Amino acid sequence: MSNQRTEISTLGELGLIEHLTKNIELQNASSVLGVGDDAAVIDHFGKQTVVTTDMLIEGVHFDLAYTPLRHLGYKSVIVNLSDIYAMNATPTQIVLSLGISNRFSIETLDEFYEGIYTACRKYGVDLVGGDTTSSQKGFIISVTALGEVAPDKFVKRSTARKGDLLCVSGDLGGAYVGLLFLEREKKIFMESPGVQPDLEGESYVIGRMLKPEARRDIVEFFAKEEITPTSMMDISDGLSSEILHICRQSNLGCVLYEEKIPIHKDMKKAAFKFEIDPTACALSGGEDYELLFTVQPNDYDKLVLNEQISVVGYMTEAAAGAHIITKGGSKHAITAQGWDHLNTTR
Amino acid sequence: MSNQRTEISTLGELGLIEHLTKNIELQNASSVLGVGDDAAVIDHFGKQTVVTTDMLIEGVHFDLAYTPLRHLGYKSVIVNLSDIYAMNATPTQIVLSLGISNRFSIETLDEFYEGIYTACRKYGVDLVGGDTTSSQKGFIISVTALGEVAPDKFVKRSTARKGDLLCVSGDLGGAYVGLLFLEREKKIFMESPGVQPDLEGESYVIGRMLKPEARRDIVEFFAKEEITPTSMMDISDGLSSEILHICRQSNLGCVLYEEKIPIHKDMKKAAFKFEIDPTACALSGGEDYELLFTVQPNDYDKLVLNEQISVVGYMTEAAAGAHIITKGGSKHAITAQGWDHLNTTR
Repeated sequence: MSNQRTEISTLGELGLIEHLTKNIELQNASSVLGVGDDAAVIDHFGKQTVVTTDMLIEGVHFDLAYTPLRHLGYKSVIVNLSDIYAMNATPTQIVLSLGISNRFSIETLDEFYEGIYTACRKYGVDLVGGDTTSSQKGFIISVTALGEVAPDKFVKRSTARKGDLLCVSGDLGGAYVGLLFLEREKKIFMESPGVQPDLEGESYVIGRMLKPEARRDIVEFFAKEEITPTSMMDISDGLSSEILHICRQSNLGCVLYEEKIPIHKDMKKAAFKFEIDPTACALSGGEDYELLFTVQPNDYDKLVLNEQISVVGYMTEAAAGAHIITKGGSKHAITAQGWDHLNTTR
Repeated sequence: MSNQRTEISTLGELGLIEHLTKNIELQNASSVLGVGDDAAVIDHFGKQTVVTTDMLIEGVHFDLAYTPLRHLGYKSVIVNLSDIYAMNATPTQIVLSLGISNRFSIETLDEFYEGIYTACRKYGVDLVGGDTTSSQKGFIISVTALGEVAPDKFVKRSTARKGDLLCVSGDLGGAYVGLLFLEREKKIFMESPGVQPDLEGESYVIGRMLKPEARRDIVEFFAKEEITPTSMMDISDGLSSEILHICRQSNLGCVLYEEKIPIHKDMKKAAFKFEIDPTACALSGGEDYELLFTVQPNDYDKLVLNEQISVVGYMTEAAAGAHIITKGGSKHAITAQGWDHLNTTR
């Protein structure tokens, strides 16, 4: 946080909004009218509009003790863009509502907005409206993202078919292990404020937690290779519960291979420091914002071109249930809490 | 509130969302995909999309001591629809994010949603998505509304012209006086819990506060009479500050006539019980959700057909400033806090 402190009350509500939005330059032709009126106006020129919303509440979704405001702003945008990409769509606009307590200064809010604008620039998205209000307690963030997709090209969760390949992007479990480190360091700091944080070598997992990215590259790869996933969603909870969503909404079962689940080497090392199974982190940890999707088997040859995509299993009929085959060859039912690795190795 | 109490935890997050959204029937052809995926999909078929968002926080925007949850749900929708109508557009969808503390039961949430759905049905709007999360303290509501408008037919705040007539819908100040009654009764109740509330005869102003409506009828009247306002916004703060928005954003001044400001007879009586000037309530009170707009002078003959519209003044050049002419004939600058009647008559 900045050292200077300017009270929000010095600007007033209108002045505050003007201060925070004065540098906006709209990037999309679809953004017909932006901040400053009763509502924004968008023209997707014959494309369909995709809309999603997420609320982040201090003390529930984030802890300002170890979350830089710049990263929080960035992540607030990313979690919504991830939902838009999960529809096979392109994000184009966001609106942002904030509840702010008076312990925030203009400088801290500026840092938060810096993160918002950085994400907007990187992903080519316009901030076109919002609402800024006071909160009695805690910082409250509500982002709604809009995107566009060619008519009927969006991809739902409910349309996977038997025999489809089950795939994930990137690697999983890192954000959860990053959170464990941050929580541990916070606890040590609370007990012994003089102790320096020991996060050496953990930048990968901590970055996964504090500054996730949305998988624009995967959706662009689909477009380039003319792949249309048969179903897709983003992985904001653990892999287990998301796979169960696809199974339930598509009325299918699946087989998932533990050995195929993508695990980053730094995450693996970090998980062992906490004596937990990396696979369990991937299955039950959340906030990785990777994509989970299914494709027709004959798209396999195209998929292998992309190192960022792992085929982790396949879809079966519903009666077969949803199962994971462990590295040891045993078979377990997938549960929403993950597959109990967290308990068995502790 | 209902007497039965079912803990939210008995359903789980997914179960809760299914419970709350199970009866949704989409009303608009534009709602291509609703609740239940990463995002909703909307096709406005060549029209432009209008988007607005508002956040309501317990203890800041509402007090559950005297706000029935059904009315709160209703009002949460209305305040957003009002912004869509203020663009001369038609609302079509909402997304809803909630932060809920564990003191809420399923039954109380059901009441809140009953209000949400009642407003949606009445205004022909679809609830197509959202996010439901826990809050550490207080009830937090964030609604984003989408609407549609024929290309470039939306009406901004910045496009009034010199000589245009300044108009408002309905009557003003009622919600503010309603709030005064509710706050008074709450205070009495806190001090002497046995005393029955004395709200006899105040149903009009209390209704204005607790269950406002959005002025769909005015926007439909414009369409029917082929009137396009030159500028428009909704009156969520007092009339004074909203007029100053139009003046500032259109780079104009104005003359407002006190005697033309529409005041309801029940509001007038109620204001006198608090020994405050009804005009001051209209100028400085908020939450009436009426429309403030300007029209070309030659639309006057059409406007007078509608008893729900009052011409209250006209636009001047910016250098002339923004003034109110009192009933006594004196001239005062309009200020965002209103024109100090609240102080002079107390």
